[in-house]
Amino acid sequence: MEEKKEAAATEEATTSEWMSRPNMVSPEEERFRSGGTKCRALNLVSIQQWRKKRRRCARGEETTAGEMNELVDLRCMDGEAQPIALLNGKEDRYGGVEVNLMEVEPMTAEEFYAKLDVSLKAWKDQGKKGIWIKLPCELLSLVDIAIKKGFTYHHAEKEYAVLTSWISDLPSTIPANASHRIGIGALVLNKNREVLVVQEIDGVFKGTGLWKLPTGVIQEGEGIWAGAVREVKEETGIETKFVEVLAFGESHQSFLERKTDIYFLCELEPSTFEIKKQDSEILDAKWMPIEDYVKQPFIQNRENFRYMANICLKRSREEYLGFSTVLTKNLTGKESYLYCNTADFLNGKLDHASTSLFTTLFRKCFCLT
Amino acid sequence: MEEKKEAAATEEATTSEWMSRPNMVSPEEERFRSGGTKCRALNLVSIQQWRKKRRRCARGEETTAGEMNELVDLRCMDGEAQPIALLNGKEDRYGGVEVNLMEVEPMTAEEFYAKLDVSLKAWKDQGKKGIWIKLPCELLSLVDIAIKKGFTYHHAEKEYAVLTSWISDLPSTIPANASHRIGIGALVLNKNREVLVVQEIDGVFKGTGLWKLPTGVIQEGEGIWAGAVREVKEETGIETKFVEVLAFGESHQSFLERKTDIYFLCELEPSTFEIKKQDSEILDAKWMPIEDYVKQPFIQNRENFRYMANICLKRSREEYLGFSTVLTKNLTGKESYLYCNTADFLNGKLDHASTSLFTTLFRKCFCLT
Repeated sequence: MEEKKEAAATEEATTSEWMSRPNMVSPEEERFRSGGTKCRALNLVSIQQWRKKRRRCARGEETTAGEMNELVDLRCMDGEAQPIALLNGKEDRYGGVEVNLMEVEPMTAEEFYAKLDVSLKAWKDQGKKGIWIKLPCELLSLVDIAIKKGFTYHHAEKEYAVLTSWISDLPSTIPANASHRIGIGALVLNKNREVLVVQEIDGVFKGTGLWKLPTGVIQEGEGIWAGAVREVKEETGIETKFVEVLAFGESHQSFLERKTDIYFLCELEPSTFEIKKQDSEILDAKWMPIEDYVKQPFIQNRENFRYMANICLKRSREEYLGFSTVLTKNLTGKESYLYCNTADFLNGKLDHASTSLFTTLFRKCFCLT
Repeated sequence: MEEKKEAAATEEATTSEWMSRPNMVSPEEERFRSGGTKCRALNLVSIQQWRKKRRRCARGEETTAGEMNELVDLRCMDGEAQPIALLNGKEDRYGGVEVNLMEVEPMTAEEFYAKLDVSLKAWKDQGKKGIWIKLPCELLSLVDIAIKKGFTYHHAEKEYAVLTSWISDLPSTIPANASHRIGIGALVLNKNREVLVVQEIDGVFKGTGLWKLPTGVIQEGEGIWAGAVREVKEETGIETKFVEVLAFGESHQSFLERKTDIYFLCELEPSTFEIKKQDSEILDAKWMPIEDYVKQPFIQNRENFRYMANICLKRSREEYLGFSTVLTKNLTGKESYLYCNTADFLNGKLDHASTSLFTTLFRKCFCLT
């Protein structure tokens, strides 16, 4: 007991001295660097925090709730027991743990190694399965450690990388990364059965002379119908209202080597008609008789282009029925659109994202009540 | 000339000595470590390779083609000119460069820094725009350097991370990361208008008692119709043939924080009827009268579930028309399916992925020829 007290006192003296002189290497660090300690988990910060906490608790200024409960692991450091805090993790509903290091205070590689090490042991004991760690670009040294501890990349975005490790003996159920991108092509017809077409400055159709439908990529979190309306407005200045999805197709391994594009052919109803083309992407834009659009050799010589052009032609003659939208809520209660045939028989109020020209005809035809 | 030869001779002597004693620090390294050289791009390996190459070329044993052409940059190192190889990059069709470091020989951080530095200068001079670097998990030290040189993560998969940097003054056109995941729900009806339903062991419906349609996630590179057939087979053992997409919906921010799920309600036609349930995921599976399926309180109390159940009910009464598939080719000539209404009027041979029950009725109804 006596010598334990002494040791603690000495250490705290040394530490306060060290803390007042940041450039001075603490004896603990010295031992660690020189490999003079068996304890890779040496973690001066958490030791100090823990000591302070313990004192506050003793004085009744703080309960042992909260982070205090995380200080579950004691490590041997030259004979003295030291606590290491677990990483702060949020449990997910699949029996996993999500660790978000985007807004934590800076952590040394040693500190992270120690915390990850004891956390993984604790989580395995608790029967946790999938472990997720989200790291900002600045903390690459921690990515390195996580990978050494058996993690792999799951996905990354501009601001962060997310790593996962499956620590259960059961088969992994870690969900797949995003696999698709959604594109749209917009059929916009005026009252004279002229279609809104553009020529692009760049891209795969450059130099083909093809007059094509306005196209674009749906943004993250954006609805298909909303993206179609946005793209037409951006490229041509024409205001439109979504009518229907007429068809869609898949194109595999079409971007980022292995990902799939799904493109939706949408019909939009124009509410303005004066074209103001987008200078950055669009070379030219105009209203073109639908028959002339379909007749273009580039389209007639390519099966999938011809198919979609024929759908547009049928549609312009009111001989084709697509999917319109109805506003509803998904499981989490968020508003979302259901794309289906004659949405109005669903007993759901038709939302104004969509106005099916064919509902009446279709209902008459199929005797729906 | 004389002293240049000498310098080279001396250096090669030193180097061979150094190479024969790996633990000995080469004078170049010494200068580099001590910061005694202005040349951060010092790169002993590439210098030696270049010298050997130069000699072989002089002896006519090798042409100056290939890597030799990459040795385009001369750097001043204590007065002596040294070549630094550019990173091996493949030009993309958008005026960018793709560097794949998945299968290159190991590179030191200094070597990568030097190559990246001169490569970026060269690419900028060449008017390149988007630069892509693909790095395996093992080369995290290089990720660190790339980020310090202005790169950010673009995306990552289990085996690698891809970083990008836009070095043009024009607005960036670097494509977005994958933003969506595709799920399916399968309506499988037998001749008695009974629907194939399951109860899952885990997941959001656990404990609700809900009898639900078989559902699943489309795999990377897999078609929607193929994924639906696969999932039904996996969960219930029932062999089916894809008929139509009946409807689809979006659910935003539904996975990986910010990504969107698009779920397709598909009808499949069963060719076998004996259920063999999947033990790992499926608690129970059975054929259930469609009316009983629709009547379930869990479904009736949730608008979007009720809507989709009503579509299934209408379909079971042959009162609903979805999108069937036609096989075609995309721009790159790869086979792909187009999902649309009455595919057979497209003058394309109907592919057997799909058999629209309604084509005849629909054509009669809309007087298509």
